[in-house]
Amino acid sequence: MADGKKKEVKKETGLGLTFKKEENFGEWYSEVVVNGEMIEYYDISGCYILRPWSMSIWETMQAFFDVEIKKMKIKNCYFPLFVSSSVLEKEKDHIEGFAPEVAWVTKSGKSDLEVPIAIRPTSETVMYPYFSKWIRGHRDLPLKLNQWCNVVRWEFSNPTPFIRSREFLWQEGHTAFATKQEADEEVLQILELYRRIYEEFLAIPVIKGKKSEMEKFAGGLYTTSVEAFIPNTGRGIQGATSHCLGQNFAKMFEINFENEKGEKGMAWQNSWAYSTRTIGVMVMAHGDDKGLVLPPKVASVQVIVVPVPYKDADTQGIFDACAATVDTLCEAGIRAEADFRENYSPGWKYSHWEMKGVPLRIEIGPKDLANNQASIPFLQLVRAVRRDNAAKVDISRDSLMEKVKDMLDDIQQRLFDAAKQKRDACIQVVKTWDEFKEALSQRKMILAPWCDEEEVERDVKERTRGEMGAAKSLCSPFDQPELPEGTACFASGKPAKKWTYWGRSY
Amino acid sequence: MADGKKKEVKKETGLGLTFKKEENFGEWYSEVVVNGEMIEYYDISGCYILRPWSMSIWETMQAFFDVEIKKMKIKNCYFPLFVSSSVLEKEKDHIEGFAPEVAWVTKSGKSDLEVPIAIRPTSETVMYPYFSKWIRGHRDLPLKLNQWCNVVRWEFSNPTPFIRSREFLWQEGHTAFATKQEADEEVLQILELYRRIYEEFLAIPVIKGKKSEMEKFAGGLYTTSVEAFIPNTGRGIQGATSHCLGQNFAKMFEINFENEKGEKGMAWQNSWAYSTRTIGVMVMAHGDDKGLVLPPKVASVQVIVVPVPYKDADTQGIFDACAATVDTLCEAGIRAEADFRENYSPGWKYSHWEMKGVPLRIEIGPKDLANNQASIPFLQLVRAVRRDNAAKVDISRDSLMEKVKDMLDDIQQRLFDAAKQKRDACIQVVKTWDEFKEALSQRKMILAPWCDEEEVERDVKERTRGEMGAAKSLCSPFDQPELPEGTACFASGKPAKKWTYWGRSY
Repeated sequence: MADGKKKEVKKETGLGLTFKKEENFGEWYSEVVVNGEMIEYYDISGCYILRPWSMSIWETMQAFFDVEIKKMKIKNCYFPLFVSSSVLEKEKDHIEGFAPEVAWVTKSGKSDLEVPIAIRPTSETVMYPYFSKWIRGHRDLPLKLNQWCNVVRWEFSNPTPFIRSREFLWQEGHTAFATKQEADEEVLQILELYRRIYEEFLAIPVIKGKKSEMEKFAGGLYTTSVEAFIPNTGRGIQGATSHCLGQNFAKMFEINFENEKGEKGMAWQNSWAYSTRTIGVMVMAHGDDKGLVLPPKVASVQVIVVPVPYKDADTQGIFDACAATVDTLCEAGIRAEADFRENYSPGWKYSHWEMKGVPLRIEIGPKDLANNQASIPFLQLVRAVRRDNAAKVDISRDSLMEKVKDMLDDIQQRLFDAAKQKRDACIQVVKTWDEFKEALSQRKMILAPWCDEEEVERDVKERTRGEMGAAKSLCSPFDQPELPEGTACFASGKPAKKWTYWGRSY
Repeated sequence: MADGKKKEVKKETGLGLTFKKEENFGEWYSEVVVNGEMIEYYDISGCYILRPWSMSIWETMQAFFDVEIKKMKIKNCYFPLFVSSSVLEKEKDHIEGFAPEVAWVTKSGKSDLEVPIAIRPTSETVMYPYFSKWIRGHRDLPLKLNQWCNVVRWEFSNPTPFIRSREFLWQEGHTAFATKQEADEEVLQILELYRRIYEEFLAIPVIKGKKSEMEKFAGGLYTTSVEAFIPNTGRGIQGATSHCLGQNFAKMFEINFENEKGEKGMAWQNSWAYSTRTIGVMVMAHGDDKGLVLPPKVASVQVIVVPVPYKDADTQGIFDACAATVDTLCEAGIRAEADFRENYSPGWKYSHWEMKGVPLRIEIGPKDLANNQASIPFLQLVRAVRRDNAAKVDISRDSLMEKVKDMLDDIQQRLFDAAKQKRDACIQVVKTWDEFKEALSQRKMILAPWCDEEEVERDVKERTRGEMGAAKSLCSPFDQPELPEGTACFASGKPAKKWTYWGRSY
């Protein structure tokens, strides 16, 4: 506690970041999520507190996604946090993937439980025994459920706020269909929603594609994902996944139904999820040496209005002008707030809200007020400062709403464009192993022709093992460049079957 | 699994309930929550699956409450599920209250954790170390946070769906103020929101009041609550609680601040919560021998439209009329659906939706269609059947929207009135121990003058111990009847200080 207090005081006197994004990305990230008030470190390693500043971003994405899946007739439910070991271990590939990370409850109060109980790392095995119970005839299909919940994966490798934590928030959708075609279609519909979360809300470009056999969901048929890339670390990051589970779980959990003709069928299942990891990717993509940079669509405060009083100025007049500005913007549906705190200088407030990444700052001071017509106790001209590029624009009162809206739209678009430009600059097409090695050493997102053999991916991992971590396939993009007949796999020399992205990853 | 399937088939052939509410309340309740598709029993005792039919009720209440607390500038956040034992045990009274029910994680994968980690039973001790960190000056106050989450209390007494489960969903608000007055005010503001949830949404009358010293929140200063009563079992049930924690936790966790004058102050804190228990109280209050009865304000389907085809009738015409009716109602903001399933008779569908408690059923068949003007492929008259009182009303097409809205409002009001009438009939005013004993044996909610001494409450518990469970104080209502000078305590004969409700409780 004492240490914490000391650190806080230091933060208050020197608002800036100690680390620079380009120089020490890891430390910069840890510092910016704390100083931007997104995260507080918690006294249990790998667990983090989501403060209101990040929680509101999660809620914005949640509001969007929840409406969209309800349009698709997916219904929310809530299954227990706990799962018995017998059920958890029913699907062997699946449990193999998760077993080392499962947290076990063995005691309540001072008593030992009769059998240890697992905390869900994901809910396939929690839910599917009940799918089996609820699905009997074709009229019970499709069954489309979703839950918003916490899950626990007790990982030991490098915990990182949002990106890799022992507990995290997510939604997990679990659906069952009579036909593979319906399942296939839904996989892509959901993937498109994930793309929209990244691109339209978080302003981060992602690549839609299919995971390799090695990287697919344990126990599933195939996995699709949206993949982002962090230029600073040269690592890909799986943004969200939409899995077709095929009939594998249906077989294990006996999810059968009678079709129209009275024949027995087995359900086709999907599961799909995105998590609070999204927020971490956003911080990494847009943040800079002054702190967070929030895309307007997810910022809980889009515009911060700062009064700039001067010794001889009409302070009350300035404050009134700020309040009126906030009201005007809020009426137009813009999320605006004024920072009226006393004993903080305007300069301190600028730094504070820059650290928190508010997209637009409006400054109102005597200079602006001087432009007033004497009879109107309100501003005629205000100064707006963009967080993304520090551009300063003077806006007249008449066009305030309109201009602010335009600027917010422009910031949203520019953040995406800038992130895309940086990401695109990292993409390197290679055709040979030497080119691949070179591109990897340059921390690229590598697009290479691949034979699509599991053995070869294993071999790539083996041959690139090192301090930075091995390379692996990220995804085979749905949007495939032309693959000329006879193109060889970059790693095996065998005939290539597809273009695939490779790289180090989170 | 095999057992489950057998039970399901039975359910499909005989839709009704096996047990009657008046005859065997406990069995009736277990059956109605399952057959109404609110709950599925889970393979870990005390854990239940919330199916979409109950989850949507939770979401409706959540939407209301979340907006209201945001108006109060309370912000959502998310703290970890896990808490270290050292922090959990910091406040002695508090941990004494919760210790026996705490679930402990001791293993991850196959490894033992260095120290066992608790799962939150509530988050005071999870959050307050960080309140201490974040609050330094008076400008950091008030700090007002809320989280929507799951909590775990590993109780061994009688698990009951919604009412008493080992994991449940709730919101927990945690706030800190510079003055007691602000804390006191918020306690009541929140309590009023809880009253509205029960009375305006769930149509259940509650009594606002203060808990006795014995029944207050472990470690707090005082507890207020809304108390409901279940006439069938003669038990009170704590609906939701709004606690003023005073400065007790602030002392333990060092939540201090410097005030305007540079003096050191200690924060005043509140915590408040309501949970999925609300849904159970609703089922108990309104359900009947045909199944659930949902108040329109929380029903995810307010109107179910059932086509009633006949051999020679124009089936397509009937289906079209149903679809058009649903569209009309949905456009008016009414949550309406049609049940077009084939191979189920209209009679089966009536029973099915009655079991699920849909407030209003609209039947559309050839009789209604016959009233059509030939050129208009639509109904002129439909039959509406109320779930609450089985009343049948024929509504003309012209006034459909308006009439349905009125009926839904009327159902909402009548459910509340009926529940209040039943609850009020259970309230018994007593003045002596003999009257108290008699009223208790009649399963009443007993209002008695009390000396407000902890020792006396302990004694009442002791003297009423028995198979049915001991009596305890439910609350001292804020709305106090006159207490004539010299009135004696019903239990001790000492001078009474207040009127207090007593009874057995959940």
